[in-house]
Amino acid sequence: MTDFKVRASSGTEYPIQPLPQLEQVQLQGMLDWLSAYGADPQGGVTRLLYDQAWCEAQYALAAKMQEKGLTTEFDQSGNLYGTLHVKGSEAEEGMEEAPIVTGSHIDTVVHGGKYDGAYGVAAGVLALEYLQNHFGAPKRTLQVVSLCEEEGSRFPFAYWGSRSITGVSVLEDIQHLKDQEGITFAQAMRDAGFGPDSCYRTASHTYGAFLELHIEQGQVLERLGHSIGIVSDIVGQKRFSITVSGEANHAGTTPMLWRKDALAGAAEMITAVRSIALEAGEPLVATVGRVIAEPGFGNVVASRAVFSLDIRHIRQESIDRCWQDMLQAFSRIAAEQQLGLNWEEHLSVTPVPMNEQMTTDIRTICEVEQLSYIHMPSGAGHDSQIFQPACPTSMVFVPSQDGISHNPLEYTAEEDLMKGFRVLVQLLYKYGYGS
Amino acid sequence: MTDFKVRASSGTEYPIQPLPQLEQVQLQGMLDWLSAYGADPQGGVTRLLYDQAWCEAQYALAAKMQEKGLTTEFDQSGNLYGTLHVKGSEAEEGMEEAPIVTGSHIDTVVHGGKYDGAYGVAAGVLALEYLQNHFGAPKRTLQVVSLCEEEGSRFPFAYWGSRSITGVSVLEDIQHLKDQEGITFAQAMRDAGFGPDSCYRTASHTYGAFLELHIEQGQVLERLGHSIGIVSDIVGQKRFSITVSGEANHAGTTPMLWRKDALAGAAEMITAVRSIALEAGEPLVATVGRVIAEPGFGNVVASRAVFSLDIRHIRQESIDRCWQDMLQAFSRIAAEQQLGLNWEEHLSVTPVPMNEQMTTDIRTICEVEQLSYIHMPSGAGHDSQIFQPACPTSMVFVPSQDGISHNPLEYTAEEDLMKGFRVLVQLLYKYGYGS
Repeated sequence: MTDFKVRASSGTEYPIQPLPQLEQVQLQGMLDWLSAYGADPQGGVTRLLYDQAWCEAQYALAAKMQEKGLTTEFDQSGNLYGTLHVKGSEAEEGMEEAPIVTGSHIDTVVHGGKYDGAYGVAAGVLALEYLQNHFGAPKRTLQVVSLCEEEGSRFPFAYWGSRSITGVSVLEDIQHLKDQEGITFAQAMRDAGFGPDSCYRTASHTYGAFLELHIEQGQVLERLGHSIGIVSDIVGQKRFSITVSGEANHAGTTPMLWRKDALAGAAEMITAVRSIALEAGEPLVATVGRVIAEPGFGNVVASRAVFSLDIRHIRQESIDRCWQDMLQAFSRIAAEQQLGLNWEEHLSVTPVPMNEQMTTDIRTICEVEQLSYIHMPSGAGHDSQIFQPACPTSMVFVPSQDGISHNPLEYTAEEDLMKGFRVLVQLLYKYGYGS
Repeated sequence: MTDFKVRASSGTEYPIQPLPQLEQVQLQGMLDWLSAYGADPQGGVTRLLYDQAWCEAQYALAAKMQEKGLTTEFDQSGNLYGTLHVKGSEAEEGMEEAPIVTGSHIDTVVHGGKYDGAYGVAAGVLALEYLQNHFGAPKRTLQVVSLCEEEGSRFPFAYWGSRSITGVSVLEDIQHLKDQEGITFAQAMRDAGFGPDSCYRTASHTYGAFLELHIEQGQVLERLGHSIGIVSDIVGQKRFSITVSGEANHAGTTPMLWRKDALAGAAEMITAVRSIALEAGEPLVATVGRVIAEPGFGNVVASRAVFSLDIRHIRQESIDRCWQDMLQAFSRIAAEQQLGLNWEEHLSVTPVPMNEQMTTDIRTICEVEQLSYIHMPSGAGHDSQIFQPACPTSMVFVPSQDGISHNPLEYTAEEDLMKGFRVLVQLLYKYGYGS
């Protein structure tokens, strides 16, 4: 975090109240415009990394950034940057100064909504335009990034945008991955005009700070009636596949006491997952979303049952303790019912606390702007968890109607979008224009 | 049951001990011979109603019956009869006398074994041959039937053989049913040379009594170390599809207390099924063999879960009480977790007690033959449950190795097959030759 210094606000300058001509910002309009790229005939948006809709959207955004007065640049991964340089400096110098960056991703899930990721990108572009229009060139370089990929919807790999910028991942690690049509990651990247043979610079990039504005994708803000969620931590996750083994038997001829019913065992385990999670209390969540019983006939006792397990919390020790409690319950149930038990860990992500100073600054803005806010964890993963270890990072949530996301019905009201925008503008002003 | 009179045994004649030259009966050999029809390259047997393997097997059996000295006849359904007439009578007269019948079915499940059904048919043919060879013509017509269909493996309809004989079902009810290739029941029947336009008589047929020899398809005899299971009742069944409705939510952003997790509810219900069934005690069995969660992703709380439920018992009131207990538990769980609950009953079969007089006669045979036996329910459905309401009916089980059935590994040792055969011969002797 050595690159990051919070600029003290200079008296009445910050936060600016009221922000001038804020009503002229067309945030919803820009989201509607962007959602035409990859619009599905049946509603919703599909833009997968390096596909045609994605390419068109990213190039259209570059043109839009230029139109708004920003200097644009792509990197080899396909991340797009729009920069607002300090007064009189050249573009190259601006880049070297470890800019204050905002943004998010423009890829979507299949049949996704028009807010997830896109909100943070559109808000970033419009925030930089607004600041330039009203306050001129900043004292520190400001930048918006349209990250190439976060969802992992095309290739079995997520956060490519932020991972390639921070150097957490390099192309060599993933170039062999294939999409559903058998196209390799490297090939898809090349076909889209990016990659090491392209004319673009490497993705590696040093940020002074990163702020991501995002829809909540949950119901907490809506239910509790708050406008702004200041993300305290991005949860860690562990994901498992649990396999219970028994014996296939005739449902009519096998007495209950002689059965080794894999599904009966799995059901008791899934019930235990819920009760252990409830007992652990918030913010722990544990989910079994998938279960398969084999052979899967109504008149045959199941020989095998496989279920998924997803555990999340903001503290690693809580995730580990919860998993140990569950594993103990699973083992007891398996022993009682004479069943075999196996598990495989698919994913382990460490929790990431957001930057404290940025959290304090955002809270101050919310108080002065009289925006109703809460501090809350993010239960979903985001690019911010990749940036935080590399630079001071924070996230701001706005409400998602009915908590719906990854769905064409995803929606956030203009008013709520604009409240998040005000927070973004104030923070960028503080870090970019503060003395 | 007016047609059925038990003939009293005449002094030392019955049961005959020892049965002469029983060691010459090649029961296992006949099962091996029959299993060549429809033999799967990877092991096992597949003979589906009216398919080529089935036709070849049924015609080969007719030839075998003739070779063994029986008069053969098909009916319009494709059931095959081999008759041992009373001395001096003509075939037609024999038919009219309400014969004492034994037999089972020759259709199989896909990749089934060579004992299920086939054992009862082969034993019947060889028993009639044996009786004729050693005791001449009977005093009452004896018949073996090779029923065309019991498994419901090709069309979504089971027990066609016994249902058409007893008149419980007629072709008009089912002729429109289609197999997986879209061939109708009526067409398949016609293609095999049967049906109302064929040269054969209608299936409707009056029996004096029916005895079915069958493998147990369970582990009870093997585990308890008995040779013969005298079936007391064929269980009744109820089958349901239970649907639990909740709300799809993000596994990370939805706190536990706000979830409407359809799979968590279903898991608790499946656990309740097991505990209610265990509490009800034997012979009640209840099985959930199939479950599906939707949308079925590990990181999405399930919006819907559907599971099968199969309840069996020898008393209707016990089935009904168990279902009511389960439904009450399901409703309580659904209410507690704010979930929707729906169910659909797919099948309801009434329990069928076997004929008491025949049961007594079989027990006497086992005692005199010194065969270790138990009275036991049949947890699986059989043709006998269709015949019993129409004529006195009983079933005899022999052990299934490891309880395995509907599988190429299905196996019963020659010694066990022959113990069942002795019971069959003695009972047919009693009813066919008794004074």
